[in-house]
Amino acid sequence: MAEGGRALRTPQRVAAVTRLLPEKEAEYRELHVAVWPGVLEALKRANISNYSIFLRDGYLFSYLEYSGDDYQADYARMAAEETFQEWWKLTDPCQGPLPTADNERWAPAEEVFHLD
Amino acid sequence: MAEGGRALRTPQRVAAVTRLLPEKEAEYRELHVAVWPGVLEALKRANISNYSIFLRDGYLFSYLEYSGDDYQADYARMAAEETFQEWWKLTDPCQGPLPTADNERWAPAEEVFHLD
Repeated sequence: MAEGGRALRTPQRVAAVTRLLPEKEAEYRELHVAVWPGVLEALKRANISNYSIFLRDGYLFSYLEYSGDDYQADYARMAAEETFQEWWKLTDPCQGPLPTADNERWAPAEEVFHLD
Repeated sequence: MAEGGRALRTPQRVAAVTRLLPEKEAEYRELHVAVWPGVLEALKRANISNYSIFLRDGYLFSYLEYSGDDYQADYARMAAEETFQEWWKLTDPCQGPLPTADNERWAPAEEVFHLD
């Protein structure tokens, strides 16, 4: 697609779910009110924006918008960065995978409705 | 706030969770690939946009952005409309409340992280 067309495209919406371990809730919250600047910058470089994480009943739901051309590739580059590897050493122990997760840190959710 | 400032405000993000009854999944999906135009118009009049519903493991997660000044009031006006009352007669039987819901159709989730 021509460069000029990119701004007009609807971003790709990506949603996922994981569990937050009750005994780690306080630690997870503390980490996320002061996310490392390097993590935020890595997310932006990966063309991720409008990214929120919500909590209800021990489940975490993430919503983000991806504006690049290849989410898997951008995500893989981001995930390989030292900053993210170090960040996940702190956050992984707070999260339990969903029972149905396919070895993923966050299990994808399917969009069944959207209104722009 | 002055009218001129409104466009600069970040919209309010609203997320919520409910259950989708397994035996009603097909019906719910059908309803949501062709949501009534009246429902969509009522959502827009209520200053709701960028509204998605996601499904994972029998749980529905909604994410929307609210750009008005009083979400509760706008929501109440919308909920009182005939179109929404009729729509919910179809969708309510598809949804089971969360065990922890406080008599809500959708149980609110708390934002624990956001990156613009």
